Amino acid sequence: MGKKDYRFFFPFRVRYSETDGQGIVFNANYLNYFDTAVYEYLRSLPFDYVGYVKQSGHDFHTVHVGVDFMSPAHFDTEIETYVKTAKIGRSSLTFDLAIFPKHKEKLLVKADMVWVHTDQSTHRPSTLPEQLIARLNDLESVI
Amino acid sequence: MGKKDYRFFFPFRVRYSETDGQGIVFNANYLNYFDTAVYEYLRSLPFDYVGYVKQSGHDFHTVHVGVDFMSPAHFDTEIETYVKTAKIGRSSLTFDLAIFPKHKEKLLVKADMVWVHTDQSTHRPSTLPEQLIARLNDLESVI
Amino acid sequence: MGKKDYRFFFPFRVRYSETDGQGIVFNANYLNYFDTAVYEYLRSLPFDYVGYVKQSGHDFHTVHVGVDFMSPAHFDTEIETYVKTAKIGRSSLTFDLAIFPKHKEKLLVKADMVWVHTDQSTHRPSTLPEQLIARLNDLESVI
Amino acid sequence: MGKKDYRFFFPFRVRYSETDGQGIVFNANYLNYFDTAVYEYLRSLPFDYVGYVKQSGHDFHTVHVGVDFMSPAHFDTEIETYVKTAKIGRSSLTFDLAIFPKHKEKLLVKADMVWVHTDQSTHRPSTLPEQLIARLNDLESVI
Repeated sequence: MGKKDYRFFFPFRVRYSETDGQGIVFNANYLNYFDTAVYEYLRSLPFDYVGYVKQSGHDFHTVHVGVDFMSPAHFDTEIETYVKTAKIGRSSLTFDLAIFPKHKEKLLVKADMVWVHTDQSTHRPSTLPEQLIARLNDLESVI
Repeated sequence: MGKKDYRFFFPFRVRYSETDGQGIVFNANYLNYFDTAVYEYLRSLPFDYVGYVKQSGHDFHTVHVGVDFMSPAHFDTEIETYVKTAKIGRSSLTFDLAIFPKHKEKLLVKADMVWVHTDQSTHRPSTLPEQLIARLNDLESVI
Repeated sequence: MGKKDYRFFFPFRVRYSETDGQGIVFNANYLNYFDTAVYEYLRSLPFDYVGYVKQSGHDFHTVHVGVDFMSPAHFDTEIETYVKTAKIGRSSLTFDLAIFPKHKEKLLVKADMVWVHTDQSTHRPSTLPEQLIARLNDLESVI
Repeated sequence: MGKKDYRFFFPFRVRYSETDGQGIVFNANYLNYFDTAVYEYLRSLPFDYVGYVKQSGHDFHTVHVGVDFMSPAHFDTEIETYVKTAKIGRSSLTFDLAIFPKHKEKLLVKADMVWVHTDQSTHRPSTLPEQLIARLNDLESVI
């Protein structure tokens, strides 16, 4: 598995505030990268997350994240967070995430993350918007 | 100036996620300590910040913070954030903040922070609630 | 599964800086709670993590974390992070983590986290210290 | 005072993890932006901060930051952090920082930040490297 298995990535440079006493990215901060990378992935479809949430009365909630930390990322290094949709459910999306150094194939972090589409008035899962499903399928040819 | 100049403090133990590559608390994280310590200071008056914001349609916004970093705080050390009200304005509160190690008088960080009381419907400054002023005066004998 | 299945918890009150635009704890911040709670769990054994790392030339690295987010935690609420050791390997420890509200049995977040004991000179996994294993077994009667 | 008074800026898009329960950037996170922007400013000179710290045995410590928060920045908005050197001391640098929205002149946040150049073996202030002073003067024509 490598970068070629993904059609999207978003680049980050490790900030000093994201490193810990070992001089490497603290584990919790990878979840910030994932979150930001998925918003950028949606933007690339294009899907206007912020506009959708405001107008639809629906939002997404993260219900699961599983992360394997293979190798550390150091301050000021350039990394790339790769995103693809692994599964489209009725109300859920499962993302496959991988972080590599820029210019290298060495896998640093591997993760999966599940978002559930929720009706903000009832706080219950609701069917994903068709437009989003169509665009994800266009990009990924998943199903 | 020392601990005896304050009538309130809130204790913290430095979390690993709050340290940086130098193994000490990253500067931004002191603002998290200040924020938390001021909420606890208000609770001690007592003043129910969360209930007040929900019921009154008003909230507080931080408009200024100035911080002097004298000495670093390391992972797992116990520190105390001291709080007092330095000035009560018509719509603003100025807090005087100081961080010391537990059991020591060595000043680590010194700060002032200004909160403005704001009407959430107009986003404009509004007169501080009398009850809050009275309780701050009771505690601090300021003005 | 409930609080009674754990022999240790560490309390937190949700800080404002830990909440996001939905007014609830942002997912990444739960990893900060887990990390802090495990250090406190080790302290309770007792096991002096900071002293051990300094003297032994070994440290622990988080290699996996899996989290299920069941229900949100709001600003200023009091939560409890429960910790137990689910598995003791040759060089790894698997922790079972659960977050409940104070005074309630409603599970908010469930997680497992794997730490690997590493020789800091070679960066390779190394056998766990016997003293730590003995104390974990004393507390948990695992294996 | 506006964008034209600065010769350098670094762009950010506000991350979800950086917003708080009011849906706007939490005050502490501006210090992360400042820190990152100053590293990029140094890189632009060019000055290789990471290489310098490794080779010289010196580092920089933030000893003061003062911030005025004028107007909030919301999730997903694009902002620009402007940096200039306001003062070059024997061992200290004072940075003038300002955050504006992309494409607008409305000042969101204004700050000054003081770094002290420190000998890592003695932890005492030490004379700034001449090369850095020369390049800062080239860029800013300060003094």
